[in-house]
Amino acid sequence: MGVDASQLEKYGLSLHARFKAGKLNKITDVPGVKVGQVTLNDPARNLHTGVTAIIPAQGNVFQDKLLASGQVLNGFGKTTGLVQVQELGTLETPVLLTNTFAVGTCWNALTRYMLARNPDIGIKTGTVNPVVMECNDGDLNDIRAMAVTEADALAALRAAESGPADFAEGAVGAGTGMCCLGFKGGIGSASRVLSLGQADYHLGVLVSSNFGVLGNLRIGDRFVGEETKEAVIARAKAEQNPRYARYWQQKDQGSIVMVIACDLPLSSRQLGRLARRAAVGLARTGSYIGDGSGDIALAFSTASRISHYAKDPVSIAALPDSQLDDVFAAGAEAVEEAVISALLHAQTLAGIRGNTVYALRDFLTEQVQD
Amino acid sequence: MGVDASQLEKYGLSLHARFKAGKLNKITDVPGVKVGQVTLNDPARNLHTGVTAIIPAQGNVFQDKLLASGQVLNGFGKTTGLVQVQELGTLETPVLLTNTFAVGTCWNALTRYMLARNPDIGIKTGTVNPVVMECNDGDLNDIRAMAVTEADALAALRAAESGPADFAEGAVGAGTGMCCLGFKGGIGSASRVLSLGQADYHLGVLVSSNFGVLGNLRIGDRFVGEETKEAVIARAKAEQNPRYARYWQQKDQGSIVMVIACDLPLSSRQLGRLARRAAVGLARTGSYIGDGSGDIALAFSTASRISHYAKDPVSIAALPDSQLDDVFAAGAEAVEEAVISALLHAQTLAGIRGNTVYALRDFLTEQVQD
Amino acid sequence: MGVDASQLEKYGLSLHARFKAGKLNKITDVPGVKVGQVTLNDPARNLHTGVTAIIPAQGNVFQDKLLASGQVLNGFGKTTGLVQVQELGTLETPVLLTNTFAVGTCWNALTRYMLARNPDIGIKTGTVNPVVMECNDGDLNDIRAMAVTEADALAALRAAESGPADFAEGAVGAGTGMCCLGFKGGIGSASRVLSLGQADYHLGVLVSSNFGVLGNLRIGDRFVGEETKEAVIARAKAEQNPRYARYWQQKDQGSIVMVIACDLPLSSRQLGRLARRAAVGLARTGSYIGDGSGDIALAFSTASRISHYAKDPVSIAALPDSQLDDVFAAGAEAVEEAVISALLHAQTLAGIRGNTVYALRDFLTEQVQD
Amino acid sequence: MGVDASQLEKYGLSLHARFKAGKLNKITDVPGVKVGQVTLNDPARNLHTGVTAIIPAQGNVFQDKLLASGQVLNGFGKTTGLVQVQELGTLETPVLLTNTFAVGTCWNALTRYMLARNPDIGIKTGTVNPVVMECNDGDLNDIRAMAVTEADALAALRAAESGPADFAEGAVGAGTGMCCLGFKGGIGSASRVLSLGQADYHLGVLVSSNFGVLGNLRIGDRFVGEETKEAVIARAKAEQNPRYARYWQQKDQGSIVMVIACDLPLSSRQLGRLARRAAVGLARTGSYIGDGSGDIALAFSTASRISHYAKDPVSIAALPDSQLDDVFAAGAEAVEEAVISALLHAQTLAGIRGNTVYALRDFLTEQVQD
Repeated sequence: MGVDASQLEKYGLSLHARFKAGKLNKITDVPGVKVGQVTLNDPARNLHTGVTAIIPAQGNVFQDKLLASGQVLNGFGKTTGLVQVQELGTLETPVLLTNTFAVGTCWNALTRYMLARNPDIGIKTGTVNPVVMECNDGDLNDIRAMAVTEADALAALRAAESGPADFAEGAVGAGTGMCCLGFKGGIGSASRVLSLGQADYHLGVLVSSNFGVLGNLRIGDRFVGEETKEAVIARAKAEQNPRYARYWQQKDQGSIVMVIACDLPLSSRQLGRLARRAAVGLARTGSYIGDGSGDIALAFSTASRISHYAKDPVSIAALPDSQLDDVFAAGAEAVEEAVISALLHAQTLAGIRGNTVYALRDFLTEQVQD
Repeated sequence: MGVDASQLEKYGLSLHARFKAGKLNKITDVPGVKVGQVTLNDPARNLHTGVTAIIPAQGNVFQDKLLASGQVLNGFGKTTGLVQVQELGTLETPVLLTNTFAVGTCWNALTRYMLARNPDIGIKTGTVNPVVMECNDGDLNDIRAMAVTEADALAALRAAESGPADFAEGAVGAGTGMCCLGFKGGIGSASRVLSLGQADYHLGVLVSSNFGVLGNLRIGDRFVGEETKEAVIARAKAEQNPRYARYWQQKDQGSIVMVIACDLPLSSRQLGRLARRAAVGLARTGSYIGDGSGDIALAFSTASRISHYAKDPVSIAALPDSQLDDVFAAGAEAVEEAVISALLHAQTLAGIRGNTVYALRDFLTEQVQD
Repeated sequence: MGVDASQLEKYGLSLHARFKAGKLNKITDVPGVKVGQVTLNDPARNLHTGVTAIIPAQGNVFQDKLLASGQVLNGFGKTTGLVQVQELGTLETPVLLTNTFAVGTCWNALTRYMLARNPDIGIKTGTVNPVVMECNDGDLNDIRAMAVTEADALAALRAAESGPADFAEGAVGAGTGMCCLGFKGGIGSASRVLSLGQADYHLGVLVSSNFGVLGNLRIGDRFVGEETKEAVIARAKAEQNPRYARYWQQKDQGSIVMVIACDLPLSSRQLGRLARRAAVGLARTGSYIGDGSGDIALAFSTASRISHYAKDPVSIAALPDSQLDDVFAAGAEAVEEAVISALLHAQTLAGIRGNTVYALRDFLTEQVQD
Repeated sequence: MGVDASQLEKYGLSLHARFKAGKLNKITDVPGVKVGQVTLNDPARNLHTGVTAIIPAQGNVFQDKLLASGQVLNGFGKTTGLVQVQELGTLETPVLLTNTFAVGTCWNALTRYMLARNPDIGIKTGTVNPVVMECNDGDLNDIRAMAVTEADALAALRAAESGPADFAEGAVGAGTGMCCLGFKGGIGSASRVLSLGQADYHLGVLVSSNFGVLGNLRIGDRFVGEETKEAVIARAKAEQNPRYARYWQQKDQGSIVMVIACDLPLSSRQLGRLARRAAVGLARTGSYIGDGSGDIALAFSTASRISHYAKDPVSIAALPDSQLDDVFAAGAEAVEEAVISALLHAQTLAGIRGNTVYALRDFLTEQVQD
């Protein structure tokens, strides 16, 4: 289908991609990965937030864990679970994305979800390590209300379980209230197909994109931020929209969380190397990895499964590091496109304190189609 | 008063300490540090757990942050907040200790506590980074019940606010259901006074101690674990106590969280160096830092305060690194004594699934006092 | 003077820089920083290599150390000294850049240089931590000959001591045999002036640029690699130049070392944050941080000096982290421009095994000047 | 043979070891590991230093690399090669141990050694990553003379190639001039045999031990430092030996480098976990990991070999992390015993500036043997 590619083409934009996108150009192109979302939009209560759940693989991921690693590009963030992911090199739960102050609630929901499915946790075996990632949507959402409920988080998980491979991007789920580079941000996704040796592999990215300041957006060879900045400010002034007042003082207080899934044979050390390349894709969209931006990447592979109760040595297949150049380049490219895809899918949203954040596409011109 | 020292002497034990203990020999010897605890003991529901709150300094720690750092000695743990503490080098909330599955609830409670005291969080300013540390008390407590409530966590915080400097150790608060080196563990504390140049400084440690396997305990020049192991097993057999069955297969699935407070002029980098020395104290008590033990240290200093809204350069006083030897040695010593203190204060506790964990002091002989 | 800016303009290129360059647009715009270089070009012996020395500040940097930090973006490299820089947060020697197999010799020369100037090292005090950074120039240089001598390294240090602020870029010093993104690379430099509060600060970058593969170069809004790739390959075929054979298989086996100097009041933790932003500048030039590329950044500040023999607490001035956005953005921008400057200054060079690497400017068109 | 064990017994000491030692109780009990040493003792020139070479496995370790990792317990050290070992998880050269200022020379020698054996390095393939570890022997050796030559380093490598499995400990090789806990230190080694599942595995440690201050030595249940301190000082006074003057002010300015070899199926991540447990063994001997002590551990396994030119996925066998408790405990135990073994083997040595450092055994009493 190539959803995002068509979005780029629609506006005459190109990332000069070197790698082929997967069927949906989404993280769900990686076999077994599923996404579910719950969106909370209640203008009366100034609620514009939600939860995005990623089920990382088929089967019971606690009993048969995935190799994983994370990278903190900038640690102004509250992601949970990274300490253990780094130590043990495994992911053993779905991943929840949400707003900053919903971390505790999503953590609780994910823990209960895991306990319900694994009666041995806390009895025969030890504990479980829930991974919850977040960005601050307080520019549009009444984040202080802590409105996300455990039921919301469980609903997102259930939606992921049953959901189709395709899913919505932009101002949905965890991305509902997010802003990016002065525009409405949110959930974005992209994928790449890699041919290494005889095999085809899939790499997919999902981001909740909430970083950056007005004027800095880059898309391929276009400095779109510079091109559109004056128009954005003019509209905000005309609409008496306070969100863009003192825009020249604005600091990067957003964050971006980036989940990289793949079915490549990679060790957790190698997944850590892949996650570090998220910085490359991010930089190309206009981020300078600001002080206040919690820029955190998580990478996992479905290629190996580590049994929770294994006692004998396990065998892990791993590409030689010398063969990782394309993996790194494709990972960077997918992160870059996922951010742009979030921007191209999001719609203008009016939120708390009179703040309205504009959709990028309001400032782009559609190209005449043949 | 030297509470713990007297405990050691009582049993004819000595750590060969080189540094002088503070007045209470507890973390609260560091001026401004306060501790409050809530203990949940409900045998009918198999609940033996709780919350220990540490208020790290006087005043509003969000508005005037403390320098801090953390060290993951072994990352099999779910502590929250470390990512941001490491990035920014600051602690901006109280610290809550609890059981593993109460992390989300304590995180929520601590967030609400901070929001209530700081109306600018989430509006004028960004977010807040709650630090919650945990160990797994599932050997004695019905951890799957997730019984700790936000009210419990808030009660611990309020107890800390109003509490006296002295506080209980052993099977209280977060330590209620913890086990350590085959004995009943829990909350332990110790402190040291350091004279550097003309000034006296205070360093205090509080641990929730839940690591290790039967037979490994060392106290100073005594291999107490070896000395007592057979008696422990014999008693367990006699009492048909399943907790010590297959003791020879037992792995370190506990954890220890160690909070080091001080009023020393140290940078966050130096506090990270100090936190790393927690491994020294820990090793001397008999830990080999097992695979399943989430051994995590947090260190903070009250000497400098960093204003949240500062715009101009701040000045940070820091000891030259060449003067840190005594700081490191004293930190290691206080961690060691805090662990032993937890063991010496804890009482035998009967918990879930028929497991009873014995108090160390049941196996020690009190020395005749003059 | 704006040397590099004029180079960019000359070819009708722009990085859309947001920050003002310093007087020379070089690292030596940071007061006290000096650069000296020794270039070895001996076609008969296939030697095309050298040494670049950076003296980081006035005075004795061992006795009065600089705050510093490093970041390993990708650790396929042999840089020495980082372990201690990270632990202690200080730089106490000049920095030498050279080829990979000259690390030991430069380490020896730098050690002797320090011993000669500090008779107390190894007697009253402990040791010294030489920082030597490297890239692999084996595509053009007979790197196996290990031809750099200690005398060469000392000559570079002496040239730095006495040298003028201006210095050559491109295929000189450590950059003599380096290649970058399919073109001749080498030494590049750039600087920025930052106004924070009432004060003007300087930030300068020097790189030895040797990373990347043909076709990937980006300069601002131009995909120059794509634009020029066919012409490069055609010339290589016409000239029977083996360097570009099987170009489609080429992997990133280069490396880039990036030295960021500044006079900003920053702690070593903050300098580490700044160094991490080198990834942003690098990504914008076309790097995906390849497997074989040792991409390593070192950042230091001349603002604070830490006396080697200090016993009392020192006072360190540090900008609040919330004020670092411009510092990070300017650092990223200077790294980006330094790489491009290396490319624009380097000349075509014929080296070992018949390899010739072409200058980028052979493939750019000079713009008509008014 | 149990060399070290017999040394302990001889003096009535015990480490209460839980694991069985290997045949020689040395690192060479790990099949394929070889050690060679060159000792420089020239009292006329105040030279008391040397080189210890470890060949980590049979065959060409560049072409067929070993999995490896390192841990910086305290980074006041100049070890080379760790950056790349951490990034790629492999060791591709022998390891050289020497004095601090001989790092460059050993690096050169090791590079030439590798180039001579691998004509493709620097031509068809990239570079090579020499690992050189060091401690500062300046208390006894004229370290400023930089007297170790490349020939010395090559001689140590050749001695390792041809040497018998047994090798000398104490004041030999890199350990010639080292001091430890106020006594003569140097090279120490120990090994353990582990039975996991059906298989027996070997784990061996070699240290160059040069850390700690007088009075702190612990051996099992004996505070030997405390027991012997007054006698040491009395002897130093009687002999007008300046080395122990102002002993109460002495800081830990030594270092210890610890090499852990094994044939266990472990990933590089797991080897990093194992290396971290070196802190446990070290702490038990009396170290508090002082500010000036470069305490660095390197761990490698011979179980998997990674071909330099591999293009297809490789298969790596790895124990489940849940089975690592004994590995960690045995590693800690072997590090502890290796340090004590260095102390028990070393002889009193008179060095530069009138400093004499005493052998521990001069202050121990041999037990009557049956």
